[in-house]
Amino acid sequence: MSIITIIGAGMMGSAMVFPASDNGHEVRLVGTPLDRSHIEAAREGGVHPTLKRKLPDKVKLYQAEEMEEALEGAGLLIGGVSSFGVEWFGAEVMPRVPEGLPVLMVTKGLIKEEDGSLASIPDTLARQAGHPVSVNAVGGPVISFELADRKQTLIGFCGRDKQVLREIKALLETSYYHISLTTDVTGFECAVAMKNAYALGVALAIGMNEAENGENSPEKYNPQAALFEESTRECQKLIRMLGGKEESIVFFAGDLYVTVFGGRTRQIGILLGRGLPFEEAKELLKGVTLESVAIAGRVSEALLSGQKKEYMSPEEFPLLMHIYEMIARGATVSIPWQLFEAETM
Amino acid sequence: MSIITIIGAGMMGSAMVFPASDNGHEVRLVGTPLDRSHIEAAREGGVHPTLKRKLPDKVKLYQAEEMEEALEGAGLLIGGVSSFGVEWFGAEVMPRVPEGLPVLMVTKGLIKEEDGSLASIPDTLARQAGHPVSVNAVGGPVISFELADRKQTLIGFCGRDKQVLREIKALLETSYYHISLTTDVTGFECAVAMKNAYALGVALAIGMNEAENGENSPEKYNPQAALFEESTRECQKLIRMLGGKEESIVFFAGDLYVTVFGGRTRQIGILLGRGLPFEEAKELLKGVTLESVAIAGRVSEALLSGQKKEYMSPEEFPLLMHIYEMIARGATVSIPWQLFEAETM
Repeated sequence: MSIITIIGAGMMGSAMVFPASDNGHEVRLVGTPLDRSHIEAAREGGVHPTLKRKLPDKVKLYQAEEMEEALEGAGLLIGGVSSFGVEWFGAEVMPRVPEGLPVLMVTKGLIKEEDGSLASIPDTLARQAGHPVSVNAVGGPVISFELADRKQTLIGFCGRDKQVLREIKALLETSYYHISLTTDVTGFECAVAMKNAYALGVALAIGMNEAENGENSPEKYNPQAALFEESTRECQKLIRMLGGKEESIVFFAGDLYVTVFGGRTRQIGILLGRGLPFEEAKELLKGVTLESVAIAGRVSEALLSGQKKEYMSPEEFPLLMHIYEMIARGATVSIPWQLFEAETM
Repeated sequence: MSIITIIGAGMMGSAMVFPASDNGHEVRLVGTPLDRSHIEAAREGGVHPTLKRKLPDKVKLYQAEEMEEALEGAGLLIGGVSSFGVEWFGAEVMPRVPEGLPVLMVTKGLIKEEDGSLASIPDTLARQAGHPVSVNAVGGPVISFELADRKQTLIGFCGRDKQVLREIKALLETSYYHISLTTDVTGFECAVAMKNAYALGVALAIGMNEAENGENSPEKYNPQAALFEESTRECQKLIRMLGGKEESIVFFAGDLYVTVFGGRTRQIGILLGRGLPFEEAKELLKGVTLESVAIAGRVSEALLSGQKKEYMSPEEFPLLMHIYEMIARGATVSIPWQLFEAETM
């Protein structure tokens, strides 16, 4: 039995208490300053307000200021923040991570650095510690509600050190939480981050069909599948461009599938697909955090800046560029279907 | 303007008349001996009985015995048979194909040869002509109804000769029918054939959820996505094993997506997922042709025979092997989730 400390009590961070405590570990869930009310509510009734599930009784709850106590004796630190909390995590948590304590982030993403390069979150956080810390990350197709309900789930952990990866896997695997491992941090993070951007892209076709044929008309799958294929092709190019392993595209496909169906990214894509400008769509989804928009913007800007000579031309990514036109430049939907025609000779 | 002759008047062959005739070509649709009633019905009322769409008036209709006439002066021959008709096509049509007339097959598939190797349909058919014929093939995410309704569609053509591929593309591309090209016949055919087998695999999770929670319970996506990811990984290995280009996996992802939603393969997967033995499921779907079952069986048997030393062990394909256990050996569903955990170090 180990002590597993989770910092970040949003939906995904909190869902991680299920495999962690099912393995018999002592689980400590620490809220960020933004999670204060989640921790309070869970302390009172035991039900997490956004995950809408009762956390196992034995989970210990902490507010942000009790972090040091929660870290004492821990064998694994899980970072449970979204990409919007990663800056806070880097500044406030990373310097406090004891040497030798491995970190596993549920945060997915690529960060644009000052020289225009796109770096993975694990690599960026590791630098912020100021001392050697092994930072690993989770990715792959998982809806937090379903994980909390112990549905069969297959995810991946990436990290630089295979021994550490195997140790973390041994702490967390269960009969319903299945874990693949990869040392291709770059390819893996590119795949699992970009699936958010491209799920928005696939959902555009759903909204376009609603606009054309009415909201309750049967779905059309050829256009959705065309966007799914183009998404896969563009992600494959990005992985290659960033120096990841091409086979890491497998982590993209299933994750894109689940993200098209689950939640907020689908909603914004449908609204844009109906022809709404982004500002109106955002207004309708007020209060919803849009990781898809953040990652699409960040990667598009890195490509468009032309700072990194090694990067491909933005023209290689027509779907991503159209998403960027919509979210950053006020364009309304107009899919460049013809640009998706590829030649592999 | 050219003459485009389509032999095989099933749903997909017949749907091809739409892009062909929208390009202004003379289109001749020839039924196989099994399509006799389709051609008769289309001649009488103009509505195709299974595609359920009126064919454009200018399409000329032929019965099998009028094939020679229909081939006269043709600039392109489209083979519109399913994989169950490919033997007939090889024996009856290929020897009659005039030299210099390119062929484009809508048939997808891998054929198990006597020495245990898996060969693509275009390569096998080309041999059956007895004289040089360029055999190319279509694949990719397309539901025939939606193509007939001119919905945005992105497919791929594969062939050995890039000049021929570009010529066929020029004959068929429209504002809604978008065509990628690849000379990786092996990788492409593996991707588009295996998507049928694996769509059955993904649909298992839908049936399992129905069995567990009732038919009208909300779908669970983590298990479906886990199967989607494993499918992609196994197909990636098959492409590599057969000597295809790894990047051809892009043709798998969108096609798997559409096949999970569209039609018969989904139905058989759901029934097996509910726990029915294959014989019962087949009885319920009486009269439905099951390409998914045929391709899963053929590829599994090639792997299990051990004839080809270069092929990977069947253990590398746990989902495909479980599908085979169900369709060929009477097993009921029991997904080997744990075997999907991969290591890429």
